[in-house]
Amino acid sequence: MSAGRAGVFISFEGIDGSGKSTQVRRLADHLQARGLRVRLTREPGGSPGAEDIRKLVLEGAGDRWSPETEILLFTAARRDHMERVILPALAAGEVVICDRFADSTRMYQGLASAEMRALVDQLHDLMIGREPDLTLLIDMDPEVGLARALARQGGEERFEGRGIEWQRRMRAGFLDLAEAHPDRIRVVDGAGEIDAVAGQIATLTDAALT
Amino acid sequence: MSAGRAGVFISFEGIDGSGKSTQVRRLADHLQARGLRVRLTREPGGSPGAEDIRKLVLEGAGDRWSPETEILLFTAARRDHMERVILPALAAGEVVICDRFADSTRMYQGLASAEMRALVDQLHDLMIGREPDLTLLIDMDPEVGLARALARQGGEERFEGRGIEWQRRMRAGFLDLAEAHPDRIRVVDGAGEIDAVAGQIATLTDAALT
Ligand SMILES: Nc1ncnc2c1ncn2[C@@H]1O[C@H](COP(=O)(O)OP(=O)(O)OP(=O)(O)O)[C@@H](O)[C@H]1O
Ligand SMILES: Nc1ncnc2c1ncn2[C@@H]1O[C@H](COP(=O)(O)OP(=O)(O)OP(=O)(O)O)[C@@H](O)[C@H]1O
Ligand SMILES: [Mg+2]
Ligand SMILES: [Mg+2]
Repeated sequence: MSAGRAGVFISFEGIDGSGKSTQVRRLADHLQARGLRVRLTREPGGSPGAEDIRKLVLEGAGDRWSPETEILLFTAARRDHMERVILPALAAGEVVICDRFADSTRMYQGLASAEMRALVDQLHDLMIGREPDLTLLIDMDPEVGLARALARQGGEERFEGRGIEWQRRMRAGFLDLAEAHPDRIRVVDGAGEIDAVAGQIATLTDAALT
Repeated sequence: MSAGRAGVFISFEGIDGSGKSTQVRRLADHLQARGLRVRLTREPGGSPGAEDIRKLVLEGAGDRWSPETEILLFTAARRDHMERVILPALAAGEVVICDRFADSTRMYQGLASAEMRALVDQLHDLMIGREPDLTLLIDMDPEVGLARALARQGGEERFEGRGIEWQRRMRAGFLDLAEAHPDRIRVVDGAGEIDAVAGQIATLTDAALT
């Protein structure tokens, strides 16, 4: 892997509230301080077309789209994001850091059933193809995220999204993925202080970029 | 093929202006007169979700979406149309008549290159799967369509869409498809009077429905 002309594609993954967006910015600062050109982006969305598709997916009732139609729409959005943002930046030699990418689809849509997971993978292979060069998986016990949320919001607000059991399944699913793709996915302990997590990530990334 | 409990799925295909929409209505009248329950629908679109996706595809500049993203969006629309309209009507025992279906995507998007055609077919197999029980291909020399358009509009208006060379390629492509799928696709001569074409279609359909 080289930060030379071909660019480097890095994604961040992890359960809700594990610190991805926080660490994306920290890594961007670190790499810019090293003199690299960095392009920050995120999914779902990341390009004007993908944002419009995202809006269409989120509009209306919860059962407006079937899981299969939703995957097709998200794949269309990702294809646009790849073509219009990620691949051009890589071609220009930039380091692309993407807040969530295909592994999130493998979890959010793919954990529903073995059939959905197979569909997600087949669609990815057919229409996206490329994986990140490096994926930083911020691993964390969902209870830690819950504690952080409670601390911030005075104990009133409930843990976001689909509840702690779902977050546990997601965590296990992400760790399975990391085990299946040890060359691409590096697991980072997300339970420590922001600076400590950022330090782990900088070390892993610097090693990958050499 | 039976018009009993399982329903029958019929599509109309053919170059621009070959008389599909005209003949869809004629066949619906014919089958209703036979006492069958008929559900008319069309693509692109055909369900509320698919119509919204269609609007998104058609909005904005011509290069807003790449051909690959466009195919993904059309496949999402078709999946919604299948799930929400076509399959439920078939399950209720109706005859579904669809004005254009997947063969149009094979031509309009697939004729661009062998790679695009392969992509269209693979996406169809993965996400749609089902073909119509009967496809009526209205075959016609594009010159006939041009003559009809000129007669109607006093010779001022140009032949619609991408020009006569493109229509010739489409015609040849549709005939190739019919040759490859002789059990499903029946070729109808579209050059005659409306009644004569409707007569051919009624005969072919009645034979298929027995
Ligand atoms: N190491 C940390 N220690 C304590 N709090 C943290 C830490 N990292 C992030 N936070 C705080 O936790 C919250 C969630 O962090 P962040 O938004 O970065 O997570 P995320 O993974 O991007 O979440 P989401 O999945 O919702 O996008 C924020 O309020 C952030 O300031
Ligand atoms: N057999 C026919 N003879 C003469 N005119 C016809 C015949 N069939 C249809 N037309 C006329 O030709 C025009 C195009 O017909 P129609 O709209 O049914 O075609 P279409 O295949 O649905 O077109 P499009 O591809 O644009 O949807 C209409 O004005 C219609 O009235
Ligand atoms: Mg975030
Ligand atoms: Mg028509």
